[in-house]
Amino acid sequence: MLSELTIKEFLEKIASEFPTPGGGSAAALSAALAASLTEMAANLTIGKKGYDDVEGEMKVVTQDALRLKSDLVAAIDKDSNAYNDVMTAINLPGNSEAEKHHREEKIQSGLKQATLAPMAVAEDAIQVMELAGKTVTKGNKNTITDGAVGVMMAKTAVLSALYNVKINLRTIKDKAFIDEISKQVKELEQNALQREKELLSNIDL
Amino acid sequence: MLSELTIKEFLEKIASEFPTPGGGSAAALSAALAASLTEMAANLTIGKKGYDDVEGEMKVVTQDALRLKSDLVAAIDKDSNAYNDVMTAINLPGNSEAEKHHREEKIQSGLKQATLAPMAVAEDAIQVMELAGKTVTKGNKNTITDGAVGVMMAKTAVLSALYNVKINLRTIKDKAFIDEISKQVKELEQNALQREKELLSNIDL
Repeated sequence: MLSELTIKEFLEKIASEFPTPGGGSAAALSAALAASLTEMAANLTIGKKGYDDVEGEMKVVTQDALRLKSDLVAAIDKDSNAYNDVMTAINLPGNSEAEKHHREEKIQSGLKQATLAPMAVAEDAIQVMELAGKTVTKGNKNTITDGAVGVMMAKTAVLSALYNVKINLRTIKDKAFIDEISKQVKELEQNALQREKELLSNIDL
Repeated sequence: MLSELTIKEFLEKIASEFPTPGGGSAAALSAALAASLTEMAANLTIGKKGYDDVEGEMKVVTQDALRLKSDLVAAIDKDSNAYNDVMTAINLPGNSEAEKHHREEKIQSGLKQATLAPMAVAEDAIQVMELAGKTVTKGNKNTITDGAVGVMMAKTAVLSALYNVKINLRTIKDKAFIDEISKQVKELEQNALQREKELLSNIDL
């Protein structure tokens, strides 16, 4: 598993001349980092003087951030695996009509998975944005930049994952699938940009 | 060293109830990820048909990205260490006037280091943006989203690091230092936002 690599090894693996892990896995890690910063900001609020009234809410934040982080860590691998499955399908034999048909089917189903993997990252990351935003507005004032960095890194993860969704949609043939996903992409993009502005508007730095 | 931890361990360490590693180290890692994506995009361009005319330029990109990545990996630790040094200074005894004076001096010099550490990350990250942008405009078309993710992650690293600079400036007393750094912060911020728009404007997704 990629998350079992050291940071140095993971960076080496990205930098290499192999296409995976690439931007999709980096997006998932970025969102996982944001979730971790959120967890820390909430942890540094719980039990602190002056924050008794948000303690319950911050406990929920730590639980939600923990769940999303664990999802996103798994997504670092899922994104790369989905891409590799498409590559495997592309290398299938295509000598007979039956083989060609089978190959094309495998490529198309692989591409759908390679589209849904970053889509799931974007959906998780937008939730992380909201949690990080909660620590910015209600959490320990000393962790305000950690929460703000969390919001920005999660937003970047949303947009990065959606870039990967959009480039894969180009090679998919199922029109209904394209339409449905494109609609969701647009909503997520607008939402991420809008919410970042709102969540960071309270920061006076 | 933090970069010797596995990704999972590093995320755990961020999420814990200790203030370091926090947003500053996450920003450095984000920029290092962007540098790695840039290296990959350039590596996947070198030697590929149709990209002979940019081969020399892409070789320079890989070298520059490699150098910045190595700087940024070191910065993951530097940022946390600088913060810890401030905490150590805060915990110095302050019983006599001499002790108070020594303590205040140590705090102030520690805060300057804790400001210059993310400043260096922001300066590296803005260079990574440019390199990632080069792979977007001139690199292998198949890596366009990796380069774009690199641009966005590096920009987020710039802004994240600058948040940490700005919050530390608040507690620094040296007016000339504050003025000089504040000027640089504003320039870097504007530059990062402007260049992101320009570098991503060529992408039609």
